Amino acid sequence: MPTNHVLEFFDSPSDQPFVIEHINEEFTSVCPKTGHPDFGAITLRYEPLAVCVELKSLKLYYQSFRNEGIFYEAVTNRICSDLVEAMSPAWLQVITDWRGRGGIRSRIIATSGNVPAVWARG
Amino acid sequence: MPTNHVLEFFDSPSDQPFVIEHINEEFTSVCPKTGHPDFGAITLRYEPLAVCVELKSLKLYYQSFRNEGIFYEAVTNRICSDLVEAMSPAWLQVITDWRGRGGIRSRIIATSGNVPAVWARG
Amino acid sequence: MPTNHVLEFFDSPSDQPFVIEHINEEFTSVCPKTGHPDFGAITLRYEPLAVCVELKSLKLYYQSFRNEGIFYEAVTNRICSDLVEAMSPAWLQVITDWRGRGGIRSRIIATSGNVPAVWARG
Amino acid sequence: MPTNHVLEFFDSPSDQPFVIEHINEEFTSVCPKTGHPDFGAITLRYEPLAVCVELKSLKLYYQSFRNEGIFYEAVTNRICSDLVEAMSPAWLQVITDWRGRGGIRSRIIATSGNVPAVWARG
Amino acid sequence: MPTNHVLEFFDSPSDQPFVIEHINEEFTSVCPKTGHPDFGAITLRYEPLAVCVELKSLKLYYQSFRNEGIFYEAVTNRICSDLVEAMSPAWLQVITDWRGRGGIRSRIIATSGNVPAVWARG
Amino acid sequence: MPTNHVLEFFDSPSDQPFVIEHINEEFTSVCPKTGHPDFGAITLRYEPLAVCVELKSLKLYYQSFRNEGIFYEAVTNRICSDLVEAMSPAWLQVITDWRGRGGIRSRIIATSGNVPAVWARG
Amino acid sequence: MPTNHVLEFFDSPSDQPFVIEHINEEFTSVCPKTGHPDFGAITLRYEPLAVCVELKSLKLYYQSFRNEGIFYEAVTNRICSDLVEAMSPAWLQVITDWRGRGGIRSRIIATSGNVPAVWARG
Amino acid sequence: MPTNHVLEFFDSPSDQPFVIEHINEEFTSVCPKTGHPDFGAITLRYEPLAVCVELKSLKLYYQSFRNEGIFYEAVTNRICSDLVEAMSPAWLQVITDWRGRGGIRSRIIATSGNVPAVWARG
Amino acid sequence: MPTNHVLEFFDSPSDQPFVIEHINEEFTSVCPKTGHPDFGAITLRYEPLAVCVELKSLKLYYQSFRNEGIFYEAVTNRICSDLVEAMSPAWLQVITDWRGRGGIRSRIIATSGNVPAVWARG
Amino acid sequence: MPTNHVLEFFDSPSDQPFVIEHINEEFTSVCPKTGHPDFGAITLRYEPLAVCVELKSLKLYYQSFRNEGIFYEAVTNRICSDLVEAMSPAWLQVITDWRGRGGIRSRIIATSGNVPAVWARG
Repeated sequence: MPTNHVLEFFDSPSDQPFVIEHINEEFTSVCPKTGHPDFGAITLRYEPLAVCVELKSLKLYYQSFRNEGIFYEAVTNRICSDLVEAMSPAWLQVITDWRGRGGIRSRIIATSGNVPAVWARG
Repeated sequence: MPTNHVLEFFDSPSDQPFVIEHINEEFTSVCPKTGHPDFGAITLRYEPLAVCVELKSLKLYYQSFRNEGIFYEAVTNRICSDLVEAMSPAWLQVITDWRGRGGIRSRIIATSGNVPAVWARG
Repeated sequence: MPTNHVLEFFDSPSDQPFVIEHINEEFTSVCPKTGHPDFGAITLRYEPLAVCVELKSLKLYYQSFRNEGIFYEAVTNRICSDLVEAMSPAWLQVITDWRGRGGIRSRIIATSGNVPAVWARG
Repeated sequence: MPTNHVLEFFDSPSDQPFVIEHINEEFTSVCPKTGHPDFGAITLRYEPLAVCVELKSLKLYYQSFRNEGIFYEAVTNRICSDLVEAMSPAWLQVITDWRGRGGIRSRIIATSGNVPAVWARG
Repeated sequence: MPTNHVLEFFDSPSDQPFVIEHINEEFTSVCPKTGHPDFGAITLRYEPLAVCVELKSLKLYYQSFRNEGIFYEAVTNRICSDLVEAMSPAWLQVITDWRGRGGIRSRIIATSGNVPAVWARG
Repeated sequence: MPTNHVLEFFDSPSDQPFVIEHINEEFTSVCPKTGHPDFGAITLRYEPLAVCVELKSLKLYYQSFRNEGIFYEAVTNRICSDLVEAMSPAWLQVITDWRGRGGIRSRIIATSGNVPAVWARG
Repeated sequence: MPTNHVLEFFDSPSDQPFVIEHINEEFTSVCPKTGHPDFGAITLRYEPLAVCVELKSLKLYYQSFRNEGIFYEAVTNRICSDLVEAMSPAWLQVITDWRGRGGIRSRIIATSGNVPAVWARG
Repeated sequence: MPTNHVLEFFDSPSDQPFVIEHINEEFTSVCPKTGHPDFGAITLRYEPLAVCVELKSLKLYYQSFRNEGIFYEAVTNRICSDLVEAMSPAWLQVITDWRGRGGIRSRIIATSGNVPAVWARG
Repeated sequence: MPTNHVLEFFDSPSDQPFVIEHINEEFTSVCPKTGHPDFGAITLRYEPLAVCVELKSLKLYYQSFRNEGIFYEAVTNRICSDLVEAMSPAWLQVITDWRGRGGIRSRIIATSGNVPAVWARG
Repeated sequence: MPTNHVLEFFDSPSDQPFVIEHINEEFTSVCPKTGHPDFGAITLRYEPLAVCVELKSLKLYYQSFRNEGIFYEAVTNRICSDLVEAMSPAWLQVITDWRGRGGIRSRIIATSGNVPAVWARG
């Protein structure tokens, strides 16, 4: 089951504002309605204040959703709130891109804080 | 014939504003003038307030246009108004991209509410 | 329902062997199991002997499958045999490429006569 | 010779502002200097007020330039003013993209009214 | 655990040789060494003799590898032998394409019977 | 009207066999049935024996089809026979690729002499 | 040596503001340090006030740099100032894109006047 | 070890503001945690005030990171501050794009001064 | 320095012939003439007889070239002979693709045994 | 003027047959008819017997055509014969790809010796 306890953080290497983007193209969870797996990509983008998320722990956190039944909209908002709670960044954005189901492919964009306008499209 | 009664909705999983995008690349209707089928893609994009559209019901709604004679401009505005009426979103946008006819391909963009500028191009 | 009576033909403009390819990216039929529409592209390739298929009649023939419940494998073989029966070409090949269903996309290749090796992959 | 008399129009299907885009990738006219044909694509984009241009008549209008000797800059501004005069849209934009001549390819952008900033690049 | 009992088959719709290709871009299994998930695409290509594999059952068969610890080379050869045993096709080919690990991405090609030369590269 | 009298030739610069390919992406003629213009690309490929076609004269020859009503299949075979008659090459191939009409795009391949197998697909 | 005397101009065909873009993908000059040729593409973009640059004369002007030893930054600013001096446009922008040297590829953007924000990235 | 002493500079060829962009697609350093090499691309973008960085010295500076153990976030901020300190540009931006590790690829964007909004996404 | 002692092998999971391909897009060595780093991709393709190369050990083997001064042609032939000596495969092929130097990019293909014709181009 | 005296060679590092390919995307010469520059790419492919061409000398050899007036067909055959004369390879192939002139782009393929069929298309 998804668990944010695996997340680890390190001190930001700069006191100047900068932007970090991690794109995971190997995300999978399970549709709670049909029980079939969902496949997607997750883009995490944020401006750190004090800490940055460690990359390997982020991978493990994403892997903890592997057998979880959860909707597109819910997984996106959950990842967003888990990371915001743990890092208190200047702003943070989570974009999920899901492979087609029934001919329809989807993108969900959740944000926290004042994401600069240039990033608003995801 | 097109019918918005098949649409189903579920409560939004977050009280924070977020964006949902569903792209259907398998839309077909019929040209009312020639009787020949038209083929296109439909992008739906919106910020939910209280409810989100359920994906399978959205597919069925789109399929209900399959044998309907209707112009590009009309189908785009109809989908927009049907969904706005049913969901009352913060804002909503419908973009249709039509395969070429006579060497000309077309895109129609209908909107409701204050669509943020970054989305304005469709 | 599919009907090969709409097909029209014209005399080949050359007595030298040559190759004709028509790619229709707007094919749709219906899945006989689920009732949902299938979308695909159909490539027809052949070397005419006496006659060539007229392009507009070919379009109408393809459109006659629009509301027909028929499997991928069956529609491919049917189009192949309908056209071979009507044209008696030197060789003929029908390739159907279907958009994904359940994360799986498919291609079916039916042939008649000695299709040169360079075309064998579709 | 180019003739805007072939253009036909129909009433806009919505009283909400929306955007229409027609891309013709099969435009050809003649260079008035060399007599050689020019080939290009024409993008028409506008927000209708009362009427929309009918697609087939637009095709015929474009075809009327086929044997006309006219410069890139002139054809772009002429199409723009012809359509504005006939439709009185909220705004309108004509973008022509010309295939290379002497290793140089060109784009001309003519506009009328307050084209929203997102469209300004063509 | 992987199970070929979910596979279902239907009679081939033609007694002429033809080729079927199913591409699943959503395959995942687990690395038996590290316990981390592997992600890849599986292309199945074959010429049926008596039966064809049913598409939904094929999806379920692939899903049964989801939590199985198994090497690239083994999963490829296992899928190949499972399907050959069940269908006895004229020839059959399984190609797996794995996303990069440590900067290296891999492809494995297993075959059964006389795969025509044009398909040999996968 | 099409005229092969504009074609000019120069002596081959080598007595070793070599291959020449000229791709014209700006071809247009007229559909004899509808009167509407057709647009396409023409690939000419050959192994010269004594002479090569001069590039500017080839352009003029292609332009002479601009207002000619002629079918895809006929224009392809005519260009092939005009050039073979004038140059007597070791082998020659003409491939025409036509933009879509009614959702169907077409390719015609005419050949003369023993075109090596690697070129057979056009 | 580079010479702006070859440039010719014609009167703007419209008194409405419009945008002209010419992209030359065949620019070459010489590195003044190594003597080796540099290859790049030059995008010229401007809003004419009274005159437009004639396309063939622009090509000749670019060709006059062929054997000139000049740095990336200098050639970009020189072309910009030469054209501004000659045309007095509302605004003008010159973007040069240089093929890689030592694994590094470069872009230089020089501007004159108030280039609208949408063009600022080149 | 990384050394900014190799950097050389030359006087800006213009007193008008202009933009310089150098993209190095051949950057490599070492992960300080695992000892494995990291591979990425580095985009440097700036508006010079008095001096520009010389291209070959920039290459040598980048090469000095080859065997240095340093995190993504740190190398990006270090390159940014080294160059700002040496050049005092109007503004400067460093974007690093790293190839995937464990299925996740990353981009870091560090800036100094008022980078115009159009460049903010990197 | 390059060392084949890090290579590890495992028993082939099948006694049927099959093909394995590993593509490493993160290879770097050093030019023995200039001392500057070279960057490239290495494709290894083979049909195992008794053993397969273990993926992580292959990565370490490639990394051992990181600071080695060695020419394109030599590194390609060395990797080929090291792996053939250690695995005695049915056939094996090594293709190296090198990023451009001085505007020229290169590919070297070394082989051992009877590589099937379909693979001969690399 | 073109000069093969700048070419240098080194001993082949292997007595096994292998293939070398060098692609130069920055070739330019001059049209002897119009005096305008021609731009193209040159692919050299060969199997060395005793010697390989040194890369930097190859670059200088290509640069020696920079201001030479010479036709496409002649430059291709000349480079082929110059290199064959100097290296006596098992086989050698020169492919030139020229940017469009008058809407027509060209490829010339010259060969020496028994080029394996897989390479015959260039």
